[in-house]
Amino acid sequence: MASGGVDGAPLPDPVVGPVLVVGAGLIGASVAMALTRAGVETFIHDIDPTVAHVAASRGAGSRHQPGPSPRLVVVATPPDQLGSEIARALVDFPGAVVTDVGSIKSKPLAFLEESSLDLGRYVGSHPMAGSERSGPLASSADLFDGRTWAVIHRPDCDTAALQRVDELVRTCGAVVVHMSTTDHDRAVARVSHLPHVVAALTAGRLVDAPAEHLTLSGQGLRDVTRVAAGDPRLWCQIVTANADALGVLLRQLRTEIDGLIESLATGDHSGVEAMLAAGVVGTAAIPGKHGGPSVTLATVSAAIPDEPGALAKLFADAADAKVNIEDLRIDHDPARAFGLVEIDVAEGLAERLTSMLRARGWTAHR
Amino acid sequence: MASGGVDGAPLPDPVVGPVLVVGAGLIGASVAMALTRAGVETFIHDIDPTVAHVAASRGAGSRHQPGPSPRLVVVATPPDQLGSEIARALVDFPGAVVTDVGSIKSKPLAFLEESSLDLGRYVGSHPMAGSERSGPLASSADLFDGRTWAVIHRPDCDTAALQRVDELVRTCGAVVVHMSTTDHDRAVARVSHLPHVVAALTAGRLVDAPAEHLTLSGQGLRDVTRVAAGDPRLWCQIVTANADALGVLLRQLRTEIDGLIESLATGDHSGVEAMLAAGVVGTAAIPGKHGGPSVTLATVSAAIPDEPGALAKLFADAADAKVNIEDLRIDHDPARAFGLVEIDVAEGLAERLTSMLRARGWTAHR
Repeated sequence: MASGGVDGAPLPDPVVGPVLVVGAGLIGASVAMALTRAGVETFIHDIDPTVAHVAASRGAGSRHQPGPSPRLVVVATPPDQLGSEIARALVDFPGAVVTDVGSIKSKPLAFLEESSLDLGRYVGSHPMAGSERSGPLASSADLFDGRTWAVIHRPDCDTAALQRVDELVRTCGAVVVHMSTTDHDRAVARVSHLPHVVAALTAGRLVDAPAEHLTLSGQGLRDVTRVAAGDPRLWCQIVTANADALGVLLRQLRTEIDGLIESLATGDHSGVEAMLAAGVVGTAAIPGKHGGPSVTLATVSAAIPDEPGALAKLFADAADAKVNIEDLRIDHDPARAFGLVEIDVAEGLAERLTSMLRARGWTAHR
Repeated sequence: MASGGVDGAPLPDPVVGPVLVVGAGLIGASVAMALTRAGVETFIHDIDPTVAHVAASRGAGSRHQPGPSPRLVVVATPPDQLGSEIARALVDFPGAVVTDVGSIKSKPLAFLEESSLDLGRYVGSHPMAGSERSGPLASSADLFDGRTWAVIHRPDCDTAALQRVDELVRTCGAVVVHMSTTDHDRAVARVSHLPHVVAALTAGRLVDAPAEHLTLSGQGLRDVTRVAAGDPRLWCQIVTANADALGVLLRQLRTEIDGLIESLATGDHSGVEAMLAAGVVGTAAIPGKHGGPSVTLATVSAAIPDEPGALAKLFADAADAKVNIEDLRIDHDPARAFGLVEIDVAEGLAERLTSMLRARGWTAHR
């Protein structure tokens, strides 16, 4: 269940319990379920006992307080309570490492730095996983599988504490990314908070739409607006806590929208296409699903006789190789009896496709 | 394959060929593949012969011109060429009904109305299906299955022509929605063009982001920006052709962003939460996947003994009923030995859940 072990490297140690999770909402309950799944002794607490009861009933550990003090406390409360709950955990459990899973790292840290607490045992973190649904009913032991989970590296935090939080992340099946507090908050403004706000604004435009118009809604609209179904109180706490970083991006967005309105009004469309082209570049910059890089394409070339059915046979042979064709170009010279087909496939599959095509009698090369 | 037949009504007639599809891109090739799948004699043409060749090789009909004149011509060219290609089809095939599958209906119609052509045989249409990929390689015979397909109702179009285009839509597996030209263009500005533009603007903000920041990208960002990977030249033609309707929405969006920037700067957050709450309402207004209404929830109540494992057993019994629990509330009175659990499920499933819970010994009612 834990990630790692790639290239024969030893699997990282799983985190050692007992672990206390404070807050049994979507993220807290999911962390507790993932730890329980991994065999780690886990306790879950919530200010609302029925919420903790629901979470525990779904496999998120035990509601009873740990006998020996927890070795790790995971604070998973709403954003506005993170600072005080982290402080409370540091005081209540002087032998424990304390982390939180909040979406903003600078605001609770500023709260803590105003206290007289030694913050060496506190290491903030943030799993990049969630759902537009909330609460323990939406929780899942595999919510974090293969997801990125930021662990905040501060000069004043203990190395051993950092390592324990890394172990938590890996035990939950996620991939550790170390980052500073400032970098984290700027990053989430761009990859999470701005997208959430534009999704909500786009969905908000649907409220006063004629019902007949909404019958034309397609998958694109559903995708763009899906995250906007998230809890408005929670998201209000998140985006307002990151006001500075988000404000910079919103002002850039406003400038672009001003330009777009002007372009549409005047009929000078060059700026519109440039804006759309930048969007294409932006989508390609998003790393692949499991935190890996975007898929790099490689080209396989094949000579193709200019006769009926040749292209159909080439497609069938590529399909038999179980290789997805990402793009294709045909260089077709009417004066020759052969054309050249350039097939773009994921780089890791180019060799397999080339071999398969050759085995089927095609003249193919990378 | 065709839709219809609901409530025992007779299945609609499939469209009768030959059908000529002009333009072998994603939509044209997919229409031709869906018609071929349904056994309709289909011909496909493209200004680029290799594009038509690729489409035909993938099952999008024949590249040869129909012997007898086509009964229906489907114009699936880029938006800027729709008006002239529809006009050409009306002239070339005086016995055929002509439709197009363009994203904007007013602009080609205005072009046609300046001609001296009788437009009774022209019925515009627009399938609400697509992909961020383009060209015949991305095409699919099932692209339209269960999707909405707008058919434009004009006072001056022949009833028989309208019916033939309805038949085309149903033969392709899609659901007909009749709409006026103006309503259509206003509707797509809201449900398609504005979402595309905000997706592109959000993706555009990623272009100059530090690579480290992008490692925190999650599924939310991918969903919000997915459509922005679409062809910028095609989308520039689409959004600029609908400049008036889109401009209205963009000005509303700018006003909201101005308010948001102000709220974040001043710390008055009431407007932020109201904006986010409107987004939630907007997502709920989007009809369900197959053009049906959003899921309506019904509540099933069950009495639950205040003892360990009771809630877990209730969840297990609900799971056995294969009913997805959408939300749940526990009314828990410490003075009583029983609590009340209210379970929200899709309305159509409430009866099944109630019966199942009763059969398992629970006291349950709707």
